[in-house]
Amino acid sequence: MSVPFSIEEMRIPEFLARISADLDRCVAFWLKHSHDEEFGGFFACLGKDGKIYDDLKYGWLQGRQVWTYAKLYNEVERFRRPELLKAAVKGADFMIKHVKEQTTGRCYFVTTRDGKPIKQQRTIFTECFYVMGMSEVAKATKQEKYKQEALSVMTKIIHWVRVDDSEIGNAKLAGVKPTNSLAVPMILLGLIHELTSGDESLNKTYEELEEWCVQQVLSHVQREGSVILENVSPEGKEMPGSMGRLMNPGHAIECGWFLLQYAIKKEDRKLQETAIEKFIINPFNTGWDVEHEGLFYFLDVDGLSPTQLEWNMKLWWPHNEAMIAFLMAYDQTQDQAYLERFAQVYDYSMKHFSDVENGEWYGYLNQEGQVNMDFKGGPFKGCFHVPRCLMMCEQMLTKIRATLT
Amino acid sequence: MSVPFSIEEMRIPEFLARISADLDRCVAFWLKHSHDEEFGGFFACLGKDGKIYDDLKYGWLQGRQVWTYAKLYNEVERFRRPELLKAAVKGADFMIKHVKEQTTGRCYFVTTRDGKPIKQQRTIFTECFYVMGMSEVAKATKQEKYKQEALSVMTKIIHWVRVDDSEIGNAKLAGVKPTNSLAVPMILLGLIHELTSGDESLNKTYEELEEWCVQQVLSHVQREGSVILENVSPEGKEMPGSMGRLMNPGHAIECGWFLLQYAIKKEDRKLQETAIEKFIINPFNTGWDVEHEGLFYFLDVDGLSPTQLEWNMKLWWPHNEAMIAFLMAYDQTQDQAYLERFAQVYDYSMKHFSDVENGEWYGYLNQEGQVNMDFKGGPFKGCFHVPRCLMMCEQMLTKIRATLT
Repeated sequence: MSVPFSIEEMRIPEFLARISADLDRCVAFWLKHSHDEEFGGFFACLGKDGKIYDDLKYGWLQGRQVWTYAKLYNEVERFRRPELLKAAVKGADFMIKHVKEQTTGRCYFVTTRDGKPIKQQRTIFTECFYVMGMSEVAKATKQEKYKQEALSVMTKIIHWVRVDDSEIGNAKLAGVKPTNSLAVPMILLGLIHELTSGDESLNKTYEELEEWCVQQVLSHVQREGSVILENVSPEGKEMPGSMGRLMNPGHAIECGWFLLQYAIKKEDRKLQETAIEKFIINPFNTGWDVEHEGLFYFLDVDGLSPTQLEWNMKLWWPHNEAMIAFLMAYDQTQDQAYLERFAQVYDYSMKHFSDVENGEWYGYLNQEGQVNMDFKGGPFKGCFHVPRCLMMCEQMLTKIRATLT
Repeated sequence: MSVPFSIEEMRIPEFLARISADLDRCVAFWLKHSHDEEFGGFFACLGKDGKIYDDLKYGWLQGRQVWTYAKLYNEVERFRRPELLKAAVKGADFMIKHVKEQTTGRCYFVTTRDGKPIKQQRTIFTECFYVMGMSEVAKATKQEKYKQEALSVMTKIIHWVRVDDSEIGNAKLAGVKPTNSLAVPMILLGLIHELTSGDESLNKTYEELEEWCVQQVLSHVQREGSVILENVSPEGKEMPGSMGRLMNPGHAIECGWFLLQYAIKKEDRKLQETAIEKFIINPFNTGWDVEHEGLFYFLDVDGLSPTQLEWNMKLWWPHNEAMIAFLMAYDQTQDQAYLERFAQVYDYSMKHFSDVENGEWYGYLNQEGQVNMDFKGGPFKGCFHVPRCLMMCEQMLTKIRATLT
């Protein structure tokens, strides 16, 4: 490179060192505290220092931790260790046995420590994380059984989403308006990426679905391209009320890098621009709290109070997603503006979320950035967003560093 | 009285004047902004100044507003106005037609503006507020039809709670532990009070149930009488995990004055002491934020972080319930300490929640007492806790003032 490095480019070694160290601490935290040697599966409810404060097993988090361990094993050399693979497989086996309802393929949101079902959500998300975990364990073990688990539940999910969702348990009430919720096409788009990466034989199977997901996701771009709304009508129109005005900046940004990944694969420049500008930059600019820093959790597009009590809290995962998204955008474009935004989110996150002493990040800060709840794992926070972010950022920074030197 | 008045007793005229004025403003707010003249029922989602930001009709809030209007009409002379009665009846008719599912007696949690069902909760609460509204409208109109609506759904609720809850839609999953949740016996105890007040013929019908509710409620007193836990086992033991450690100070205090009402009716001095000491004083002392004032929403009995993100917010209704509870305790005992606590909650509430300019209170403050969401009505806040508190406090203060002069 003939031009001098920018301030942020100069910081790349610092970013990389800290992120790698945080990833090591994060993985060590879950390895040390979350394994249930007696019944299998993972404890999710872990205090600041890893102490178990509840022994319930959450389905989302089982699938996500299985995925994380298998992914680390598959992709990061220093984590290609038997203990990670063994734990991933043990977690997958717990899920097959206890989290999946055998006759319907539906999964339980939460079970007792020994795997007795407690609750089923009226959504497809536990099932999606089941597929995600099984798919990655299949790649790690090369065992057909896990691949078949992934594919058979994926087939069920597609049926529920596109043909008939009566098995999901949502009564067909007369006032329910058909809704395109960003979460659904977005999570499917992410899942297809997972299923097909390294297994190109599946590309054809999911080609049409993937294109459908992209179109569904794009219909959330509203108000002349300026905002992403969480819920739109099946025709891609704004919907009335609080639900119709809801924005979730972190969600839009996460969706942004899913779309960007797809655009890279398809070498689709126009879609790449849309992903970066509409799904990453705009929601970031709208969602960033200029007074206290950090990303808001929920906003109302007309500036009203969201009805979610936690709307102005700063949660860890939107910051994880923003770090991935900006680094990916920079990696694709070499536009300094994205590396600056990455640095902005990195600085906030390392200052407020990261816990160097105990490992793993705090999850929930108040608007001012103080720790509002000091646990590291809870019903909706497990071994997933933090290690996925750190792993992906480590990979991207390593690649970027190589191009700069 | 030969002893000089205390500071708080001197303030009774001030309390009364402000509370009466706030009640007038509150009722005026709902009368002006919440009536749906076209489809019947009440809008609940109202902004700071009453502007409708969502037109969904929430079942809890329909029943509660019907009750509030009918109660004001029945018990407060200046509100014995045809427009309140008419609106209560119109609301009740909307509920009969749209909120109640005709064949099962189950009620919908939320409907469209024109009454099409959107969602049913897997709980009995909408049904309880249905009964509460119908019962009070029956007293106001002397129409048997509303009484029958109340009694028939009450019979259903009792069946679901004590015999078989399969109609509530909770799948019988193997890991679900039978739980005594404070909300259930507590709301039934309150309902029986409503149904039997002014209709003593029903005393016998609900006598055994009422006694059962009291025993169920009392089993939430845990750790040698020092705390009220939200969830205990059917045998009255502590339960494991976050759920077992959960405390909701406002809920315990509300339950405290329900119990106190019952103790007064039964002239049961021992129960009166238990109600005041265990359900009102202890939870208040535990729940009061000594740093920033106000009552926390949720706490963990072992001092861990609750998993509810909104745990440290200050919600309006615990403060309403504490005002009622302390004034009732003072009225029964003439113990100055309770009037002091009333004054403490009154001062905080009038400073932070009350909105003299627009009427009705704000509902949601952050820990520091700043308005976190500026709407006056939302999916869980309607015309109920504020006017019930102001009406009951007005009645009690009027009575207390008469004894002091």
